[in-house]
Amino acid sequence: MVAVDLGGTRMKCGLVAADGAVVHRETRATPREAGGRAVLDALVDTVVELGQKAAADGHRVRAAGVVVPGIIDAHQGTVSAENLLWVNTPVLAELQAAVGPDQQVTLAHDVRAGGYAEVRVGALRGTTNSLFLPLGTGIAAAMVVDGSLVSGDGYAGELGHTRFVQGEAAELCACGQRGCLETVASAAALARRYGARTGEVVDGAREVLELLAAGDPDAAAVWDEALTALVDALVLYTTLVAPTRIAIGGGLVGAGETLLAPLREGVHERLTFQREPEIVAAELGEEAGCLGAAFMAWDVAAGPAHD
Amino acid sequence: MVAVDLGGTRMKCGLVAADGAVVHRETRATPREAGGRAVLDALVDTVVELGQKAAADGHRVRAAGVVVPGIIDAHQGTVSAENLLWVNTPVLAELQAAVGPDQQVTLAHDVRAGGYAEVRVGALRGTTNSLFLPLGTGIAAAMVVDGSLVSGDGYAGELGHTRFVQGEAAELCACGQRGCLETVASAAALARRYGARTGEVVDGAREVLELLAAGDPDAAAVWDEALTALVDALVLYTTLVAPTRIAIGGGLVGAGETLLAPLREGVHERLTFQREPEIVAAELGEEAGCLGAAFMAWDVAAGPAHD
Repeated sequence: MVAVDLGGTRMKCGLVAADGAVVHRETRATPREAGGRAVLDALVDTVVELGQKAAADGHRVRAAGVVVPGIIDAHQGTVSAENLLWVNTPVLAELQAAVGPDQQVTLAHDVRAGGYAEVRVGALRGTTNSLFLPLGTGIAAAMVVDGSLVSGDGYAGELGHTRFVQGEAAELCACGQRGCLETVASAAALARRYGARTGEVVDGAREVLELLAAGDPDAAAVWDEALTALVDALVLYTTLVAPTRIAIGGGLVGAGETLLAPLREGVHERLTFQREPEIVAAELGEEAGCLGAAFMAWDVAAGPAHD
Repeated sequence: MVAVDLGGTRMKCGLVAADGAVVHRETRATPREAGGRAVLDALVDTVVELGQKAAADGHRVRAAGVVVPGIIDAHQGTVSAENLLWVNTPVLAELQAAVGPDQQVTLAHDVRAGGYAEVRVGALRGTTNSLFLPLGTGIAAAMVVDGSLVSGDGYAGELGHTRFVQGEAAELCACGQRGCLETVASAAALARRYGARTGEVVDGAREVLELLAAGDPDAAAVWDEALTALVDALVLYTTLVAPTRIAIGGGLVGAGETLLAPLREGVHERLTFQREPEIVAAELGEEAGCLGAAFMAWDVAAGPAHD
């Protein structure tokens, strides 16, 4: 399979064998500054060239999986993604036309693809009701419900854009709503909120975590706000969808038990009648999206899934 | 099919033909005051006797569907239901032993069964991502996601026990949590909160709705609190699971457009990037649970569902 994880700054690309082995890796720049049309052209070129490389190396390309950070309309094959300057862009049709009928192209949401990979070979292996929640620049969720990854026609899983901050403290989110989880608990939010609180510019969430470890009270304050909202979100998700395991991913999970222990404790204290989920770190890191793209493309090419 | 909708006060029972026609209806008292053992015995007797009646009338009983208001452990076949005084009670095993191997017994959650009926023959017909939300004595949700009714091993759908009231205003719920949707937006909550606010005892939510229509300011206040929490809940559900249609059921939907119009307006105002769902009244009323029990039992007896 050709697999491409298209982000706002980079395309992580690979050739993946049927057994999940990554036989080739490369990274290309996403020409976002040149506009949405240029991003799509670069994506199409990348998928075509990776297929040519595979053929030249003597492999048969069965399918191409492309994951994107945006809303995929499953019926239309169009993508809307602020990061890529796409609005209802006909990505699937252009990709499929470029690679021809021998390679079936599958489009998937980056986080859902990552969740799919975690279920197949990562921290959620063996689960039928679970959640993959990467805390990165943004926050979205991959929901596994009754054995299937939830799509909701491409719209489901926006736990990051659910209100978990109330009243005066609720900031306006990029999505247009107020008080979204993403405004306090994403890696980007931690850095931004620490900066707003102290007037000091920090170099990302990693620096906030270092300050936290060093006992900085402002770092502790923004961290506590993030944890409070995250516990709310996990309790809500547990009440509504009853996962047995929750895998936290993204940059923030680099904090390890500093993040996971208070989440476990907070959720445990709040639950009453609900089934308590395990809360663990995701296992596949940055490669999850690309692996998920390959697995999804493989499954689509191999025919409909069976229960 | 034999179908029984077991509630805390009554058992609504029926014989349902394969085409969904109800060929016999009866209602029996639930002997709750005699304890959980008596409730189970009464349920078993009812299912057995309905089967005997069907056979005497010349029908062949293929299956029995029983719906209960509680948490059903799908792996164990046990039920926990405060209303029925059951704690991990082995309902499925006792029922199956009593009716014998010729009738396959299916246990389901009452609200999920109602949602299943709404999808099959009611307000959610034709939907693959939708929500059935009955606002009755309690609040639970039947979630249809990617074409299937969500079970979560029996634990999913507890939207009524999700926090939508914050801070000082958050009341303790029967479930042990604070600020649950059910504490402000169930039919029981409306009556209770009106009483607490005014010191006057009202005869259920219906009377609060009459007072509301007559311009009573206290009725308007408790109604507005309910609407605010319901809009929050519907926005959250839409963001997370992306339904195309939401059917409101239960006693409160008797308020008609007094309920539905402000919910539509409130949800419309709050959504930004999300797909907007239709918000409609459920169609099957009190019979939804019983019909759903029959449909579910039929589908189980007829073999695995196909996509």
